[in-house]
Amino acid sequence: MTTNWRRWLPSLPLLRWGHQYNRDTLLGDGVAALIVTIMLIPQSLAYAMLAGLPPEVGLYASVAPLLLYALLGTSRVLAVGPVAVVSLMTAAAIGQHAMAGTPEYWAVAITLAFLSGAMLLLMGLLRLGFLANFLSHPVISGFISASGLLIAASQLKTLMGVKAEGHNFLDLARSLWSQAGQTHILTLAMGGLTVAFLFWVRSGLKPLLVRIGLQARTADVIAKTGPVAAIAITAVLTWALHWEAQGVKIVGTVPQGLPPFTLPLFDMALWQSLLVPALLISVVGFVESVSVGQTLAAKRRQRIEPDQELVALGASNLGAAFTGGFPVTGGFARSVVNFDAGAQTPAAGVFTAIGILLASLFLTPALYHLPQATLAATIVVAVLSLVDFSIFRKTWAWSKPDFTAVLATLLATLLQGVEVGLVVGVAVSLALHLYRTSRPHIAEVGLVPGTEHFRNVLRHPVLVSPQVLSLRVDESLYFANSRALEDRVNDAVATHPALRHVVLQCSAINDIDASALESLEAINHRLRDAGLQLHLSEVKGPVMDRLRRTHLLQDLGGQVFLTHFQAIQELAREVSDA
Amino acid sequence: MTTNWRRWLPSLPLLRWGHQYNRDTLLGDGVAALIVTIMLIPQSLAYAMLAGLPPEVGLYASVAPLLLYALLGTSRVLAVGPVAVVSLMTAAAIGQHAMAGTPEYWAVAITLAFLSGAMLLLMGLLRLGFLANFLSHPVISGFISASGLLIAASQLKTLMGVKAEGHNFLDLARSLWSQAGQTHILTLAMGGLTVAFLFWVRSGLKPLLVRIGLQARTADVIAKTGPVAAIAITAVLTWALHWEAQGVKIVGTVPQGLPPFTLPLFDMALWQSLLVPALLISVVGFVESVSVGQTLAAKRRQRIEPDQELVALGASNLGAAFTGGFPVTGGFARSVVNFDAGAQTPAAGVFTAIGILLASLFLTPALYHLPQATLAATIVVAVLSLVDFSIFRKTWAWSKPDFTAVLATLLATLLQGVEVGLVVGVAVSLALHLYRTSRPHIAEVGLVPGTEHFRNVLRHPVLVSPQVLSLRVDESLYFANSRALEDRVNDAVATHPALRHVVLQCSAINDIDASALESLEAINHRLRDAGLQLHLSEVKGPVMDRLRRTHLLQDLGGQVFLTHFQAIQELAREVSDA
Repeated sequence: MTTNWRRWLPSLPLLRWGHQYNRDTLLGDGVAALIVTIMLIPQSLAYAMLAGLPPEVGLYASVAPLLLYALLGTSRVLAVGPVAVVSLMTAAAIGQHAMAGTPEYWAVAITLAFLSGAMLLLMGLLRLGFLANFLSHPVISGFISASGLLIAASQLKTLMGVKAEGHNFLDLARSLWSQAGQTHILTLAMGGLTVAFLFWVRSGLKPLLVRIGLQARTADVIAKTGPVAAIAITAVLTWALHWEAQGVKIVGTVPQGLPPFTLPLFDMALWQSLLVPALLISVVGFVESVSVGQTLAAKRRQRIEPDQELVALGASNLGAAFTGGFPVTGGFARSVVNFDAGAQTPAAGVFTAIGILLASLFLTPALYHLPQATLAATIVVAVLSLVDFSIFRKTWAWSKPDFTAVLATLLATLLQGVEVGLVVGVAVSLALHLYRTSRPHIAEVGLVPGTEHFRNVLRHPVLVSPQVLSLRVDESLYFANSRALEDRVNDAVATHPALRHVVLQCSAINDIDASALESLEAINHRLRDAGLQLHLSEVKGPVMDRLRRTHLLQDLGGQVFLTHFQAIQELAREVSDA
Repeated sequence: MTTNWRRWLPSLPLLRWGHQYNRDTLLGDGVAALIVTIMLIPQSLAYAMLAGLPPEVGLYASVAPLLLYALLGTSRVLAVGPVAVVSLMTAAAIGQHAMAGTPEYWAVAITLAFLSGAMLLLMGLLRLGFLANFLSHPVISGFISASGLLIAASQLKTLMGVKAEGHNFLDLARSLWSQAGQTHILTLAMGGLTVAFLFWVRSGLKPLLVRIGLQARTADVIAKTGPVAAIAITAVLTWALHWEAQGVKIVGTVPQGLPPFTLPLFDMALWQSLLVPALLISVVGFVESVSVGQTLAAKRRQRIEPDQELVALGASNLGAAFTGGFPVTGGFARSVVNFDAGAQTPAAGVFTAIGILLASLFLTPALYHLPQATLAATIVVAVLSLVDFSIFRKTWAWSKPDFTAVLATLLATLLQGVEVGLVVGVAVSLALHLYRTSRPHIAEVGLVPGTEHFRNVLRHPVLVSPQVLSLRVDESLYFANSRALEDRVNDAVATHPALRHVVLQCSAINDIDASALESLEAINHRLRDAGLQLHLSEVKGPVMDRLRRTHLLQDLGGQVFLTHFQAIQELAREVSDA
């Protein structure tokens, strides 16, 4: 296993593991698939509901995508299907075009999956995977936490048995507040108890099972079946005690059968208005999926290829679109379960897909009496684990710009919804990054006595000459910071009346763009007009190669020195001769 | 003069030169003011016409702004007033709200000057001058060249004596083409001759004057009076030969008198739709003005303060708004003339303002017979000097991303107008910059035999160990490039089966943001999961100080070495012991 990467072929990841398949891998994959199927059934139903779609759509969205990812994906263990944040984004995107529960709403969801799949595929073919890098970790953290809070808030209405609307926190809160009088007590009691039960299963059951002698891994797997237990218990109770007649809303008839063949709507106006949501859903889904995949692959010294992942996720979403599904991506919890349960190859995904298919063929009648509040409870418990405010403490300690970006993302997402939140997060983090690099660290340096080293005059006792100024720029020069260098040199010239020479130590300059080149030319001309010489020292090879193609070196008032020490020695001699 | 910067006071630049005023400075300022006034009269009339405003508005916009800049500006020689590019942007912005020639149009122009002034003032008070840095030199070049072409094209209709509309090249061309049949031959002939005359004055007259014995500077000054001569000659011809009766359009009655007191429209909907144009006009005006000011200040070893310039330009535009003007900024040609003619202090600006004021009081009746085509000719000749395609050759040779940014700016400006062009230019240059830094140069390095230096294994014959990998990252680590480092390390681990240690040489890393810190933690964990150790070497002091506040150093599989050589020595010993 440790060297099978050598045999990886470029195109179809299936070829990399298919020919090694044996009984061991089959066993591992089969057990993992069984556990993931049990976990996925309630999740698929619940996330479809979160997206405003009928529950069976969640099952449909878990079949074709899993199969296509198994064929094309580079992660061995990633489980693809409906996930919480993408479902929320789907609801926000479709809500502007159709009423939840209508056939039009479902058709728009299918179209959104189609557009998102096409975009992912295109990004993969154009090798645009790097675009996801512009979502910084703090922005993702803030966004996921805020989405978790939004999702939990959106499920309160189902837990309370009332109707409420809104795609941001304030609208939701206002709507819930006005409906609070109509709360259905039985629904709330059952939902509340289910939430408490699920939290206990997460935090209390596993230690208990370990104490009574089970292995940690087995205990973990049993704890994952909590939602299934909750579904079975509440469905049976609702049936036995006739809770439906008392006003508890149930899932009702879920059609039995294979996922249907569906087509997206070919409506250009709709496509145009779904473009931005589809792009955001694609990027968020890709980032979530790749980070899960990378983390798990690294544990077995495997690797995933981001551009191929784009292709695989694109195909998965296209698959969802043509089989009655909605936008999907790789889920965190289910992939970890798949990995821990011993999945060895993507065949585990194929088996899981077969499991879900069987459920959609035979299991759906059993869901008739399932209370909607139970699904809401499973969502609330799942998403509250996404909420993690430690990022605030961490970024506050580490970097204030990152802290600002998290805060902006969180507030914008809560107050304006997922799409605005994400855009604000990216914009703020880029703006702060550019702001920082637009103010480069430029140190006046002097000679450390007895050495050939130069250090910042503000931090070290160093030797300087009133006629020679040494500046070290700790950043590549580009348009946003080149004027800062001009300003710094202008200031220095205005405040050092005896100055004759300015030497730029270029050791930290990896690149000089056209604006910075013009700035250097301007600095050179201005210094010459004022009777001063500009020199460069320690210019990197590639930068020097390119400078030779310009007029700067010919026009340069001074010289280019190999080391800064040479420059200062020679200029000191010249100054003392004059 | 060389040390008077010491006495600069923070607030009112007037205080810095006022008390040194004497007969010499008075003479220099007076002569310069006279020449600039003669140059400014035709320019002011022409640029008002370019902006779609009555000619006298150009004179109004050249009085109060000059006075306020003299009081508040930090450049000694900058001449503020209507300029070509800003006038074009003004026309594009107002064209969406009112018909040129109507009182509403003028009122919107006044409102635009007010908003632009308020923004500049606010940016100055908030010290946001650095924002202008995000307009890269190539983008400015492309934008100015495209604007020059657009302006020249927009003046063709006046030279042809037809009506045409459009704020982009295609619309203008289409409109002119459809009107070509109605061309007024006499207007075209006169306009064409005026253009030819003005080009000859620029390029032929000055050498001629120098040959007949005049000093270069005097010849230059005489050449600058070309437009005034053209105005006088064509006005007299039109009057004497009754060209107006033959269909040549004349300027007509220009009201005599002081600039009026005016107020902006207080209409929130209008303000909202003018916000973006006002911001773009402010930024373009500021960038143009500051670069002129800086170039001229440096020649006398003076300096200008960008944030104070924002305040001064803001006040100038507010002044324009309250005295019937339109958006203004510091002009290149007139400031250079002012400087060359010997202006010593901002008092030259005050004298120029008085000159323009006298013109608006007494000279306007003489403009009655002036053909509009003459003003169009002066505009065409002035703006064609802005068009400079050498930027394409330069950026092609120096940097392809810069070339792409220029091309995008030029095309977007020509095809979609000034506002779209500017936004596209900034967006493209930022995107290309971020793209470059998101793919940092990461070199695998090895020991240069017989030294303690490490160099790129691809460029130099160096020593490496199969158990120890040395990577040098030539960029600060931030969210957009941290994943690239993860990928690189993942790749290396997957392709070096014998690997035991990974050492990151951090000598070129000036900053690590929260995303990059998480990436380093992820790399560390993944390496540990795979049985490898991560080490760091040559971490800069400030970065190390901040790393100490995190868990990374405690969790680090390996160690932090002072130099990379130490790291390799120690790890080599460890590997051979094992």
